[in-house]
Amino acid sequence: GNHEVSKMDMMDTLQHEGGELEWKESARWVKFEEKVEEGGERWSKPHVSTLTLHSLFELRTCLQTGSILLDLEGYSLPQIVDEIVDRHIADGLLAPDLKEKISYVLLRKHRHQTKKPIHRSLADIGKSSNAASSLFTDQTQSRSMNDISDTPSTDQLKNKFMKKIPRDAEASNVLIGEVDFLEKPFVSFVRLSQATTLGGLTEVPVPTRFLFILLGPPGKTKSYNEIGRAIATLMVDDLFSDVAYKARDRDDLIAGVDEFLDEVIVLPPGEWDPKIRIEPPKKVPSSVLNLNELGQMNGSAGGAAGGEDEDLPAQHELGEELKFTGRFCGGLWLDIKRKLPWYCSDIYDGFHIQSISAVLFIYLGCITNAITFGGLLGDATDNYQGVMESFLGTALAGTVFCLFGGQPLIILSSTGPILIFEKLLYEFSKNNSIDYMELRLWIGLHACFQCFVLVLSDASYIIKYMTRFTEEGFSSLISFIFISDAIKKMVALKYYPINRGFKPDYITSYKCECIAPDQGESFNLTDMDWTQLSKKECEKYGGALVGNACKYVPDLALMSFILFFGTYSMTVSLKKFKFSRYFPTKLRSLISDFAIIISILIFCGLDCLLELETPKLHVPTEIKPTRSDRGWLVMPFGKNPWWWYVASFIPALLVTILIFMDQQISAVIVNRKENKLKKGCGYHLDLFWVGILMAVCSFMGLPWYVAATVISIAHIDSLKMESETSAPGEQPQFLGVREQRLTGILVFVLTGLSVFLAPILQYIPMPVLYGVFLYMGVASLSGIQFWERIKLYLMPLKHQPDFSFLRHVPLRRVHLFTLVQIVCLAVLWILKSTFLAIIFPVMVSVLHCFTFYSSCTLFYSILFYSILFYSILFYSILFYLRFKKNVLTITLALRNKNIPSVKTSCCKNHKGTERIFSNYN
Amino acid sequence: GNHEVSKMDMMDTLQHEGGELEWKESARWVKFEEKVEEGGERWSKPHVSTLTLHSLFELRTCLQTGSILLDLEGYSLPQIVDEIVDRHIADGLLAPDLKEKISYVLLRKHRHQTKKPIHRSLADIGKSSNAASSLFTDQTQSRSMNDISDTPSTDQLKNKFMKKIPRDAEASNVLIGEVDFLEKPFVSFVRLSQATTLGGLTEVPVPTRFLFILLGPPGKTKSYNEIGRAIATLMVDDLFSDVAYKARDRDDLIAGVDEFLDEVIVLPPGEWDPKIRIEPPKKVPSSVLNLNELGQMNGSAGGAAGGEDEDLPAQHELGEELKFTGRFCGGLWLDIKRKLPWYCSDIYDGFHIQSISAVLFIYLGCITNAITFGGLLGDATDNYQGVMESFLGTALAGTVFCLFGGQPLIILSSTGPILIFEKLLYEFSKNNSIDYMELRLWIGLHACFQCFVLVLSDASYIIKYMTRFTEEGFSSLISFIFISDAIKKMVALKYYPINRGFKPDYITSYKCECIAPDQGESFNLTDMDWTQLSKKECEKYGGALVGNACKYVPDLALMSFILFFGTYSMTVSLKKFKFSRYFPTKLRSLISDFAIIISILIFCGLDCLLELETPKLHVPTEIKPTRSDRGWLVMPFGKNPWWWYVASFIPALLVTILIFMDQQISAVIVNRKENKLKKGCGYHLDLFWVGILMAVCSFMGLPWYVAATVISIAHIDSLKMESETSAPGEQPQFLGVREQRLTGILVFVLTGLSVFLAPILQYIPMPVLYGVFLYMGVASLSGIQFWERIKLYLMPLKHQPDFSFLRHVPLRRVHLFTLVQIVCLAVLWILKSTFLAIIFPVMVSVLHCFTFYSSCTLFYSILFYSILFYSILFYSILFYLRFKKNVLTITLALRNKNIPSVKTSCCKNHKGTERIFSNYN
Repeated sequence: GNHEVSKMDMMDTLQHEGGELEWKESARWVKFEEKVEEGGERWSKPHVSTLTLHSLFELRTCLQTGSILLDLEGYSLPQIVDEIVDRHIADGLLAPDLKEKISYVLLRKHRHQTKKPIHRSLADIGKSSNAASSLFTDQTQSRSMNDISDTPSTDQLKNKFMKKIPRDAEASNVLIGEVDFLEKPFVSFVRLSQATTLGGLTEVPVPTRFLFILLGPPGKTKSYNEIGRAIATLMVDDLFSDVAYKARDRDDLIAGVDEFLDEVIVLPPGEWDPKIRIEPPKKVPSSVLNLNELGQMNGSAGGAAGGEDEDLPAQHELGEELKFTGRFCGGLWLDIKRKLPWYCSDIYDGFHIQSISAVLFIYLGCITNAITFGGLLGDATDNYQGVMESFLGTALAGTVFCLFGGQPLIILSSTGPILIFEKLLYEFSKNNSIDYMELRLWIGLHACFQCFVLVLSDASYIIKYMTRFTEEGFSSLISFIFISDAIKKMVALKYYPINRGFKPDYITSYKCECIAPDQGESFNLTDMDWTQLSKKECEKYGGALVGNACKYVPDLALMSFILFFGTYSMTVSLKKFKFSRYFPTKLRSLISDFAIIISILIFCGLDCLLELETPKLHVPTEIKPTRSDRGWLVMPFGKNPWWWYVASFIPALLVTILIFMDQQISAVIVNRKENKLKKGCGYHLDLFWVGILMAVCSFMGLPWYVAATVISIAHIDSLKMESETSAPGEQPQFLGVREQRLTGILVFVLTGLSVFLAPILQYIPMPVLYGVFLYMGVASLSGIQFWERIKLYLMPLKHQPDFSFLRHVPLRRVHLFTLVQIVCLAVLWILKSTFLAIIFPVMVSVLHCFTFYSSCTLFYSILFYSILFYSILFYSILFYLRFKKNVLTITLALRNKNIPSVKTSCCKNHKGTERIFSNYN
Repeated sequence: GNHEVSKMDMMDTLQHEGGELEWKESARWVKFEEKVEEGGERWSKPHVSTLTLHSLFELRTCLQTGSILLDLEGYSLPQIVDEIVDRHIADGLLAPDLKEKISYVLLRKHRHQTKKPIHRSLADIGKSSNAASSLFTDQTQSRSMNDISDTPSTDQLKNKFMKKIPRDAEASNVLIGEVDFLEKPFVSFVRLSQATTLGGLTEVPVPTRFLFILLGPPGKTKSYNEIGRAIATLMVDDLFSDVAYKARDRDDLIAGVDEFLDEVIVLPPGEWDPKIRIEPPKKVPSSVLNLNELGQMNGSAGGAAGGEDEDLPAQHELGEELKFTGRFCGGLWLDIKRKLPWYCSDIYDGFHIQSISAVLFIYLGCITNAITFGGLLGDATDNYQGVMESFLGTALAGTVFCLFGGQPLIILSSTGPILIFEKLLYEFSKNNSIDYMELRLWIGLHACFQCFVLVLSDASYIIKYMTRFTEEGFSSLISFIFISDAIKKMVALKYYPINRGFKPDYITSYKCECIAPDQGESFNLTDMDWTQLSKKECEKYGGALVGNACKYVPDLALMSFILFFGTYSMTVSLKKFKFSRYFPTKLRSLISDFAIIISILIFCGLDCLLELETPKLHVPTEIKPTRSDRGWLVMPFGKNPWWWYVASFIPALLVTILIFMDQQISAVIVNRKENKLKKGCGYHLDLFWVGILMAVCSFMGLPWYVAATVISIAHIDSLKMESETSAPGEQPQFLGVREQRLTGILVFVLTGLSVFLAPILQYIPMPVLYGVFLYMGVASLSGIQFWERIKLYLMPLKHQPDFSFLRHVPLRRVHLFTLVQIVCLAVLWILKSTFLAIIFPVMVSVLHCFTFYSSCTLFYSILFYSILFYSILFYSILFYLRFKKNVLTITLALRNKNIPSVKTSCCKNHKGTERIFSNYN
């Protein structure tokens, strides 16, 4: 069987210090080499061992001539040393009279790097000089002069280094030394039958399995050291270590060295400075590497290698969860079956310090969103839905979804399209004297029903044909919208304009006075001292504000800018702090995890300190509908003619399309392979709950909710896990995301409780939150390959990073692909902003003129949205077919896939694509 | 002789494309390997060639069995191929009937990476199929089917890659291919007697000297490719290349391979992923490396290696220019002799685009400094010396120094100690009714005389005993002062306070009115409309400003902060932009060079855009003394009693000490070995001119000038040169500083002309300039090792960078050394700020009470300064003795010196130190 035991090596060299011999640790290997810096009295950074070929050949010779003791029964060092020396004598490699001397040397004390150099007292020196004189005179004394204790010392047990070594590790000890009584080298390679703790031999109490001893005549220290480093490097090598465990005789070991030599990587001396310590690579080939791969690296990209499971394209992976079952409710049932076993762990996996940061971060994002959308909704619907409804709705929908949804990492929120829809709907019902809330309820019910139909028929499976093109386009668009929204909101703080023409000298002429209205009305207003009124009072009583200072508010604009930009840039820097050299790793990742909260606190503090009236976060403090003439429940019947209950099926269709696309594309982005999610997803289950929440929210007159891409990505980013490094020098690996329901639930419960948190929340300035939004948008962009490819435009050829796809796809094709994406995005952006912004007011004004035709407007917008989304789908498919080689090559190249297997998956997908293509064309 | 010819290799592989054979370029080596990315159709990034040991051994076998043709007379490829094939047949390595086939294959067209794949027309395809059918039928046709032209094509000549290859380069061509008619490999190594341009063989028109041909039976492409890479790597290796040029026979070549094998660096397969392309190292060992060094790297730090000149400690290096000649004027004479030959190049070396940026940068620094110090001096001396004097003095002193000084990179400026001295002197003369200007003139004359004495007696030589400790302490202190000054000046902009309690609602109650004075005076003031007066007018006429808005100025404080911080952080980012991947290298270094100017322009633009009344740079516009009662010339006699002419010798002593220390320590910092100055320095000459300028400035009543450390460092930083990369992948090296007088002269001429530039300069806000100051301070800190060592405190052991001194000196000693430096700095800082700030007002108030004793005050301050500076010197020496091992070890470690030679230089310096120690103690 394959010995899967972890290995660690220690190399000790013999030192003559103050007339006394001792073994001093000089290097160690867990996976990489760490040497003792002689002058610095410290461990060097872990680095890749660079050996000389010469030393490897010398080692080979050593193994050929030295004594090899395999499966020696050893229980203590003296006994083992005895056996080794006896074998040497028996083999005629050592004169018998040297036995005592060799044993004496081998049993000297081992000094480890943890211990300070010994400052001996005078008495000690006296003792040792006595010892030195009687060195080789008395045999029994020599035996008793074994310096090594059998039990691990406290130093050994307390050593922190132990944490870095796997539990089952076995040690190899390499002992290298020069002694003057030898004329030819004394070499011994020992494998113990059982790993045995040999007391003070090792730095940490790890049982020793292998011993390599090289004692030689003086004058060749460097050469001996290099041989020691070579054997130590070999012993931590998976390949040779395996051989060493299984070797039956000397020849097996030699063969192992040869095998190792065959696999080594050679750097030409003229191109590499051997003084450079090579940093451990990000990823080391865990299994035995073959020359094939090496050839592939430097040679052509061709060559067929069997695809590992990990390397399969995304389509294949999604396939399992999104395959068309053909059974009634088949997908939903599979989703439930998949998610149910994880339910308990979904709760207890949430208990981690990182969750606190994630909860606070996402909570702040959510309430900001709730307030913004609430405000806009209030404007759009004459407060039928306002900030209060937005808060309650967010809390309710979010909690339910996180409790029961298929992918609890998704954060529900109001989104732009829904807002526009509500606006149109309200205008329509107002102009036609239809009851808005009732109409909306029916649309919601229909949409819920339509969602159910989609769930029951496994319609979500078409998502699996989504390409990187669509996925990237969508998430980039949403990110750009997020960024532009954050900036727009900042710019929109124009109710605090800067007094640009202000001259400090003319301060006496700057004023703003309240002047009584012209007509002397009969009230007792004339009695009032108008100059004493505040701005609001003045406006209230109908006074006029006169003066050149009236429209200006000092400092607030610039302060808002400082808060906005400061929050953003501090968050970015603190996030980056993780990769700095300062402070211990744990503290750094804590700071990085809490980056957003720290920035928010700091800039709230700054804001408090300056006591400026920056716009603050104001949440409603009482639970009651924003509009007093509505209750918490909408009645389905009675206010509108009956045929509206049926006709609302058609606008519901639009809502369903909106929701379906928004929800499922966001889910695809969240479930991206790069996130390494382990608990699976549940597209059908997600849609089922979104449908139910549609109905519930409609009944309660709350806004509708759907997955918010950017906040969901932020949620995932804040829950990312990295491996703790084990061997020194190993790079931490991204392990996956803390998949659980707790953070989501807490976020939305907190959102619900925000009504009671108002006194605390009122200290948070809005610009700070906009800064957080900006960060979210930028951060969600940075994970997108599309963005990396845009950056390539600005880089000259030779500075471009060594992306895998650049090795396999010509640059001009990559550029073309990116350009097409940019154009598509630009078109979408224009549709989203300019076009809609023009069309919608036109439509609204048309609505005013021809109230009669207004029911058409809704159809227009349905048509428009349908066209928009079908055109996205259509173009995706078109581009998929046109660029399918590129798309796939890039997709696959990113996943380190080699070319040949593209062909097969390409064909497979081609068929699938044609299927939906024929469906929709 | 050693062949110092540059080498480049090209490897072409035989490709069967569309039924036709052609040679396709697959990799090239100038120093590092670049391969053709098959899919990407591009050159890969230059990387270190990673070979397999296997391929090297196979290559060795190839050279043992193949035919070796040395010093072949070759003039064209067909002739060379003929000779090769004939030799093979003669040696019995090839059947004679294969001659035509081999020749045909070897003479196929070479397709280089620059060319696009050939899209042949139908006619072409017809032709080629004809050719294929008649492939081996007609001998003469086969010969005429040589595809390779004899003259370089235009493609070859136009290739940009040519720029990367040294002029005298010779090429090695490696041809690797599979052909089905061979049963065993056809191997040939050819050295031509003369490098010959073989037409279309090479990508660029570089003459070919070596040819390696490997044709083999099919099925082992990968193996052949690896052999080709191995020989190509060997051919660019200095070691083997040398052997190849000199080899007399096959055995020499084999020996060369063995020698190469002996030197290779081996990476264990388990610790390194061969797929990683290793980036070229920063520095490659240019000469042949020996195992000694390799051992030193991984083994102990000991081992004696001969010290190269470059590695000698700073003391030794300074020694030449600062040695005590013992002759009258000896040092000054040597300085002149050293600097005179460079004088012409000092002018024309300045013509470079970088100089423009340096001039603008330093110019802005200088005028800001001139204005600040001018303002302070004006306050301190009742405008006897004001901004105007400061400008003229700076221009005069700077121009003269840059024209004739020993180190024209040093920038002269007013400094803090001089300012304090002037302040004290003015107070003293005012209180004692002594004429300030005349007293000052005499002090200047005495100081000038004392400087001359120091110059004539070579006193500057004591500077060479200055240690890193003092040097770093001084420059850190100055940098900290610069940073704190910049921040203080920003904070001092408090005449624009923020109205912190401002409530937008109460805008009606914020006003500032001008109220007429209480007493009804008889003037016609009462007739005035007081409310119409501006703030200044109101104050002028004695009105009272009443209202809660009077002391506030909106927006300016925050705007100043934005300008200050924005300029600083944009400069930092633009400076860093050099290391980004975007845009071509030239554009990036241009942006980086002009970083400060760009930031200043951007933030001036922003300031203009917002039209706020931020404090601007106002330079005087008329050349006349600030005080109208003084002229441009100070008369030496007539106003003070005669004995003052003599007594001023004593305060002059203080000034001389100040100037000597400031000037020479700055010069040491500028002449630091790290700056790689080539034109030498002139400490004595510098001091000579500073002395003369003292006298001139005293006569004209201008401030005194001395070297300004931080601005000088900024000057040097803005003139740093880096090598243009030659071979692809080589890292640019710091070459030195553009040493010339032009930038300095231009800076000060511009300063003089600033009077006429006032209309332009008035657009520059002061906060922007303070931002530049902050940048200067921070940038000058970053070059100091002391700062790096402070940062070590915050880093956990394992994250500390691999500094050379950390390998050789225990961390706790490094920390202790740094701590001592910090404490010393703190003490100096407190002395500089708190202590002086307390003592000086006390002294001034004592001055008021006991005017009689006031002459003592000057003596006190002399005493104080003497004590301060002697104590710095004393403590430097003390710590030098105490820590001399550390100081030297660190100094030397930084210069990659090994330990043993420390001993000698240590002893040598010890003697020197004792000498000054006895001098001063």
